[in-house]
Amino acid sequence: MTTILLLQGANMNWLGTRQPEIYGTTTAAQLDDRIRAHAAENGYTVEIDYINVEGEAINRVYRAHTEGVDAIVMNPAGYSYAGYALRDAIKGIQVPVVEVHISNLHRRGFESVTGEAAEGVVMGFGLHGYILGLEAALHIARGGGKE
Amino acid sequence: MTTILLLQGANMNWLGTRQPEIYGTTTAAQLDDRIRAHAAENGYTVEIDYINVEGEAINRVYRAHTEGVDAIVMNPAGYSYAGYALRDAIKGIQVPVVEVHISNLHRRGFESVTGEAAEGVVMGFGLHGYILGLEAALHIARGGGKE
Amino acid sequence: MTTILLLQGANMNWLGTRQPEIYGTTTAAQLDDRIRAHAAENGYTVEIDYINVEGEAINRVYRAHTEGVDAIVMNPAGYSYAGYALRDAIKGIQVPVVEVHISNLHRRGFESVTGEAAEGVVMGFGLHGYILGLEAALHIARGGGKE
Amino acid sequence: MTTILLLQGANMNWLGTRQPEIYGTTTAAQLDDRIRAHAAENGYTVEIDYINVEGEAINRVYRAHTEGVDAIVMNPAGYSYAGYALRDAIKGIQVPVVEVHISNLHRRGFESVTGEAAEGVVMGFGLHGYILGLEAALHIARGGGKE
Amino acid sequence: MTTILLLQGANMNWLGTRQPEIYGTTTAAQLDDRIRAHAAENGYTVEIDYINVEGEAINRVYRAHTEGVDAIVMNPAGYSYAGYALRDAIKGIQVPVVEVHISNLHRRGFESVTGEAAEGVVMGFGLHGYILGLEAALHIARGGGKE
Amino acid sequence: MTTILLLQGANMNWLGTRQPEIYGTTTAAQLDDRIRAHAAENGYTVEIDYINVEGEAINRVYRAHTEGVDAIVMNPAGYSYAGYALRDAIKGIQVPVVEVHISNLHRRGFESVTGEAAEGVVMGFGLHGYILGLEAALHIARGGGKE
Amino acid sequence: MTTILLLQGANMNWLGTRQPEIYGTTTAAQLDDRIRAHAAENGYTVEIDYINVEGEAINRVYRAHTEGVDAIVMNPAGYSYAGYALRDAIKGIQVPVVEVHISNLHRRGFESVTGEAAEGVVMGFGLHGYILGLEAALHIARGGGKE
Amino acid sequence: MTTILLLQGANMNWLGTRQPEIYGTTTAAQLDDRIRAHAAENGYTVEIDYINVEGEAINRVYRAHTEGVDAIVMNPAGYSYAGYALRDAIKGIQVPVVEVHISNLHRRGFESVTGEAAEGVVMGFGLHGYILGLEAALHIARGGGKE
Amino acid sequence: MTTILLLQGANMNWLGTRQPEIYGTTTAAQLDDRIRAHAAENGYTVEIDYINVEGEAINRVYRAHTEGVDAIVMNPAGYSYAGYALRDAIKGIQVPVVEVHISNLHRRGFESVTGEAAEGVVMGFGLHGYILGLEAALHIARGGGKE
Amino acid sequence: MTTILLLQGANMNWLGTRQPEIYGTTTAAQLDDRIRAHAAENGYTVEIDYINVEGEAINRVYRAHTEGVDAIVMNPAGYSYAGYALRDAIKGIQVPVVEVHISNLHRRGFESVTGEAAEGVVMGFGLHGYILGLEAALHIARGGGKE
Amino acid sequence: MTTILLLQGANMNWLGTRQPEIYGTTTAAQLDDRIRAHAAENGYTVEIDYINVEGEAINRVYRAHTEGVDAIVMNPAGYSYAGYALRDAIKGIQVPVVEVHISNLHRRGFESVTGEAAEGVVMGFGLHGYILGLEAALHIARGGGKE
Amino acid sequence: MTTILLLQGANMNWLGTRQPEIYGTTTAAQLDDRIRAHAAENGYTVEIDYINVEGEAINRVYRAHTEGVDAIVMNPAGYSYAGYALRDAIKGIQVPVVEVHISNLHRRGFESVTGEAAEGVVMGFGLHGYILGLEAALHIARGGGKE
Repeated sequence: MTTILLLQGANMNWLGTRQPEIYGTTTAAQLDDRIRAHAAENGYTVEIDYINVEGEAINRVYRAHTEGVDAIVMNPAGYSYAGYALRDAIKGIQVPVVEVHISNLHRRGFESVTGEAAEGVVMGFGLHGYILGLEAALHIARGGGKE
Repeated sequence: MTTILLLQGANMNWLGTRQPEIYGTTTAAQLDDRIRAHAAENGYTVEIDYINVEGEAINRVYRAHTEGVDAIVMNPAGYSYAGYALRDAIKGIQVPVVEVHISNLHRRGFESVTGEAAEGVVMGFGLHGYILGLEAALHIARGGGKE
Repeated sequence: MTTILLLQGANMNWLGTRQPEIYGTTTAAQLDDRIRAHAAENGYTVEIDYINVEGEAINRVYRAHTEGVDAIVMNPAGYSYAGYALRDAIKGIQVPVVEVHISNLHRRGFESVTGEAAEGVVMGFGLHGYILGLEAALHIARGGGKE
Repeated sequence: MTTILLLQGANMNWLGTRQPEIYGTTTAAQLDDRIRAHAAENGYTVEIDYINVEGEAINRVYRAHTEGVDAIVMNPAGYSYAGYALRDAIKGIQVPVVEVHISNLHRRGFESVTGEAAEGVVMGFGLHGYILGLEAALHIARGGGKE
Repeated sequence: MTTILLLQGANMNWLGTRQPEIYGTTTAAQLDDRIRAHAAENGYTVEIDYINVEGEAINRVYRAHTEGVDAIVMNPAGYSYAGYALRDAIKGIQVPVVEVHISNLHRRGFESVTGEAAEGVVMGFGLHGYILGLEAALHIARGGGKE
Repeated sequence: MTTILLLQGANMNWLGTRQPEIYGTTTAAQLDDRIRAHAAENGYTVEIDYINVEGEAINRVYRAHTEGVDAIVMNPAGYSYAGYALRDAIKGIQVPVVEVHISNLHRRGFESVTGEAAEGVVMGFGLHGYILGLEAALHIARGGGKE
Repeated sequence: MTTILLLQGANMNWLGTRQPEIYGTTTAAQLDDRIRAHAAENGYTVEIDYINVEGEAINRVYRAHTEGVDAIVMNPAGYSYAGYALRDAIKGIQVPVVEVHISNLHRRGFESVTGEAAEGVVMGFGLHGYILGLEAALHIARGGGKE
Repeated sequence: MTTILLLQGANMNWLGTRQPEIYGTTTAAQLDDRIRAHAAENGYTVEIDYINVEGEAINRVYRAHTEGVDAIVMNPAGYSYAGYALRDAIKGIQVPVVEVHISNLHRRGFESVTGEAAEGVVMGFGLHGYILGLEAALHIARGGGKE
Repeated sequence: MTTILLLQGANMNWLGTRQPEIYGTTTAAQLDDRIRAHAAENGYTVEIDYINVEGEAINRVYRAHTEGVDAIVMNPAGYSYAGYALRDAIKGIQVPVVEVHISNLHRRGFESVTGEAAEGVVMGFGLHGYILGLEAALHIARGGGKE
Repeated sequence: MTTILLLQGANMNWLGTRQPEIYGTTTAAQLDDRIRAHAAENGYTVEIDYINVEGEAINRVYRAHTEGVDAIVMNPAGYSYAGYALRDAIKGIQVPVVEVHISNLHRRGFESVTGEAAEGVVMGFGLHGYILGLEAALHIARGGGKE
Repeated sequence: MTTILLLQGANMNWLGTRQPEIYGTTTAAQLDDRIRAHAAENGYTVEIDYINVEGEAINRVYRAHTEGVDAIVMNPAGYSYAGYALRDAIKGIQVPVVEVHISNLHRRGFESVTGEAAEGVVMGFGLHGYILGLEAALHIARGGGKE
Repeated sequence: MTTILLLQGANMNWLGTRQPEIYGTTTAAQLDDRIRAHAAENGYTVEIDYINVEGEAINRVYRAHTEGVDAIVMNPAGYSYAGYALRDAIKGIQVPVVEVHISNLHRRGFESVTGEAAEGVVMGFGLHGYILGLEAALHIARGGGKE
């Protein structure tokens, strides 16, 4: 069965608590439920990890490679600014990575440094972006091409 | 019925002919068929326009607003570099715009100038990105929120 | 009789519709009436053109030169960001050009690229800026000096 | 009666003497006469001050606020380059300020730092710019809106 | 017979009228005659197009590709500053493009953005540069190599 | 008889040996033969100098001026990056200089610093660029104008 | 009782050992004693944590929020350069943060990236800066306003 | 008795009047009372000067040095942007200077140019920052070290 | 006996797996063997640590200082881009550090931020660089001077 | 008799007191004596003014122009960083200005902004630079040319 | 027998005389002895050249290529700043080049421009760096790989 | 007897021929006569060298050091832009260097890179600057201090 790792970067475990006027009141647990439901409906396995330490995220990414995960959906969150080591880790594995940002970074005037290592990027659609990112990852994991 | 405008920016009418080693051999007409099929399956109307003149794209965007189009999916393509006037037009309408890029711009070292006016952006998934962009647009057009 | 061309740049035809919280609800047609009234009171002819395609604005500017228009009042609007070709066209004609911006660009952190080709610039006075710009153009067209 | 303060920044008292090939031979005194005539014709009071010390210009601006001046027309002249403290003073008062520059700064390749604090800016029309600036200020002082 | 398209960019139709102190008094029509004479002497067909709208230049470039034109000589003129979309169009075709500039851009402190898409560039030789550019294009079109 | 100096800058004596995958296998001697043949056919004298020391190139340029050479064709090669002293020397003489580059510098992302001192520049046509450069120099040396 | 968390960033546990010629010979333990004495005198509880891993500092900051700590005094130390994720964490909590730097960063030519998330900053007073920072935090925690 | 000079920079005499939504409604006179009360309680003499002319602030700073003032607390205010001459004056005296800013400059995106000449800086605590700055100055003036 | 710590930075534990086309197929374990063999031949003790978490690398560095390690050879790897805190830690200890990079960073267009804290740097020699770095460290640890 | 104005900029009145380790212990009064002796020996009149307020320096410069001073020797000192208004004043007068700096600004990494308005600049010779500057000014004032 | 060229760049012949407080008192001749001893011990031939003229260094580098030298060890010294022509020469030959710098350039805030053409770089180990560089060159010359 | 070396940099041997509208018609030989006359009058020996090759200028500078020249007066001319190696040579000797520029570099918008190695700089006084530079050098060579 297709397995996707959802990697939530620095600060994401506080979703719903942190700046709710921007990020909304849905908590990380509620989001996880929604994502697990999506996995059940679409017949794939999802592993969800919230990691605030960049070096551990690097380890997690390599482990996904070793364990044969089919695709990674990652919101780099706090790693977006200076996560160069994580970017190199992603370049170093064969697992395709789809990057998701809740907000549209173009409006905030900076680019995610991990973005260039990702297969593709989805940004600006709020939490719905996770669903889009998972579907993009599923498309790739199941051999859907780019043409 | 939900109506989505797919606006293809400068150079997109030559898809399949132009740098096929990068953009593939699927032609604009073949892409259109695929998109129309997606519209039929998902019960929405799609209008597709290929426009190489920025000023005409501006007019098209305002017309979409006047005619009550529910959402726009746009690949700015050649307007990505200096399409500031188009960006202002998008800011000036109420219709939500989803921006799609075939390639991952983070790898090419620049940002689309129209991106900040879009609701969200999808990039790097090849032609499949249009399907993702249309589904994102449909989600928004049908009232799906960001939480 | 003194003839002035009022050239409205990209996006200006949507005045009143576009971001009314910023640009107000006066429509392009209402503004035209006000300007025509001013022309009638002050004894000059005014031609008003709204053009969204930069290349056509270039042609319009040269035609004004050929037809002997006495002065041009131009709001470059969407051409303010990258209208270098239009700037060169203005440098290429003998007709004096007065540039008008509705908002004060100093507050928005950028400079109009066409500004250096203009005789003078008026910015930040809202729609009243058109009246000031027309009076400045009239002063020049009627031989009023700079001392 | 409407009262307008005309504030002439650093170096302006030497108008007519300083670089006459650029700024012309009209002296500050002659300009003042012309401005007073304009005030008389248009029924408003004008106070004219030439100030070369930025801190005194700051004091003058606050005094205008305290005394209830209706509008200020200011040519920052020598303060254009680094007059940040004066800019903050202008932001700190309720009196609207119209900024006038004799030359078109776009041609000289820099922006006035006080410009962002002004209501609007008029530049490039030579000494006639003072008349345009005063009329703009009068329009504002008499309640003329921006629409 | 070898066919070369001469594409004249924004503002070039006003050659002879526009800033004659810089660009001389030879008109576009006179230049065309000279170029047609050169074509007749050298046994090739030349098509000459003056286009002020970038999007139309893009279409023209693709059409040259479709019609099997052997080479393009292009003076991007007004597109030199921000003609990124045109640049991409040139990259997207197989027809070799020779870029010509009347003046030496190194003296004017900027680089043509379309230049990187051209096979080669000729600049600074005035109108004679068109002859040099056509001969360079002819050399390439007739199979002359780079060694 | 018209005399042209061909000045080959730093590293050019190793043509054919140096990075043949880029610069081809034609040697400096073979190129010289071709250039001498062109001179014979076109009735002018050519002097060819390969100089790797910038200060000696400066001396050579002044000597050309003193001896009355009619034009210089120069490939600055290694001097393109920091040859400011050579640039000043070229500005200091009356002999027109035509600059030639084998590759199209726009694709390599930098500008030749000597370029602004040259009459005109030819780049990107491989070794054929020397022929184009010599013909451009001949045109100038024989009084061919820029109109 | 008012509770303040003192968070010591990367490298701070080596105070007294690390570059004593700059940071002095007072050790972290000695500093802690002084701070605890201050807390006892001023009737508040202080928790002191030295954390070298940014992700753990993020967790600590959120935990302070959850546990209802009244204020945080933080010396970001090694996080000052690229601690963007920690900055976002601080923005995400309601607990006020006072930032302390032992040295005056203006003299070292850089700005702390976490500084913009802090309520206020105290820098340059050596270890005494902790006392000033704690008093500032106490003022805020006890409802002392900014007026 | 310890004597501290409180030097209020450009625009500070208008505290309470100027942008009260940002700086609050406490007037300069009210702030002075508070500071004098603090001096009385803590047994030191305070001299308060509001100076809008940078050159006079320079003179004041040197005079403090000559008169043997023990420390200076300074809010450079309007001098923060370009007060380089004042910065040099502070470097030129032996009296320690503590810099105070009402707002947190990190949030406003610039650094005070006088900051590098100060012993230490306190920013972002509103008017309470003066109390903190005075206490820091007192600590230094009374021989409190940095360890 | 001389003791050297070999500190392998972020991503180095995946040597041999990660981008083998760039970094080769030698695994971390094989490299360790080679290094231990070198230590045995040259009569020194080597401790090898692979650390992906920057904060832990900081702790490791200070521990080396405390334990009296004679020299550190470090490949900062993923810390090269933003490891400022690690850089400060290295500055804070007395143990000399030799930095090793497998690739030549000059070809990749950036500089290691930790490099300025190292005694010396060896880059571009592939895995053989570790041997060079260890010999350099040994030279220093055994009192070999710089003259 | 030739009259030279020596204008000492911001902070210069504290010569001898201010940072004596850099600027020496010679006081302003002692320097004046030396300069007056030089004037007596060389048969010219010297007026010496120390001015800390830029606006007053502007007035002084214009007064020199009005009174027919033959040359000005100026050490801009504190005005070197942002004295743009003073620079414009110097451009506005006919009196030649010789700029003197005690230190060599090339070593301090910045350029005096008034320098471009001066006839020539002398820097780095300590107080002896005043003698050199006065002799340069005398040369110019007495009609010594530049050849 | 393996032959290595040691190329000493601009200023290196003055080793021992030039800034001995930085570069030590070992002279170039003494260094040569040490290097020749190393060659004798390790069984290779070393040629040592000190060249202050960049163009001659270029010729030397090409001659090494022609003569079949096995490797070059080069301290670019004075060419480090602007030796672009030398860099191109190194790129143009097949002989591997090892670059040596006496000091650690990361501490001096700039990068050697020739560095990107070298196989690898050794910096910061003082004169011992030559030994390390020669051993690295020997490793490469004798076929030691990078794995 | 005091000996001064006058070192004329790249292009200076063509004084009088090169751009006479800027540099005048005085030739290098005429300038030399004037300088020799000055030496005779002031009782010192002057050696004059014109050198166009930077590496030879480096050698000349070191030779001056070895021969015990008392001071060097140098116009770096063409070395002003990229003469970093020469700059290092000057830093490496004990002989004081006075730098002279004929024009005022502040007006040409760049700084001489050798300037920071000089004792002092004289610029903008035309050929008279050599006299001023020689007198400055003489002052230093004869032990005249900076106070």
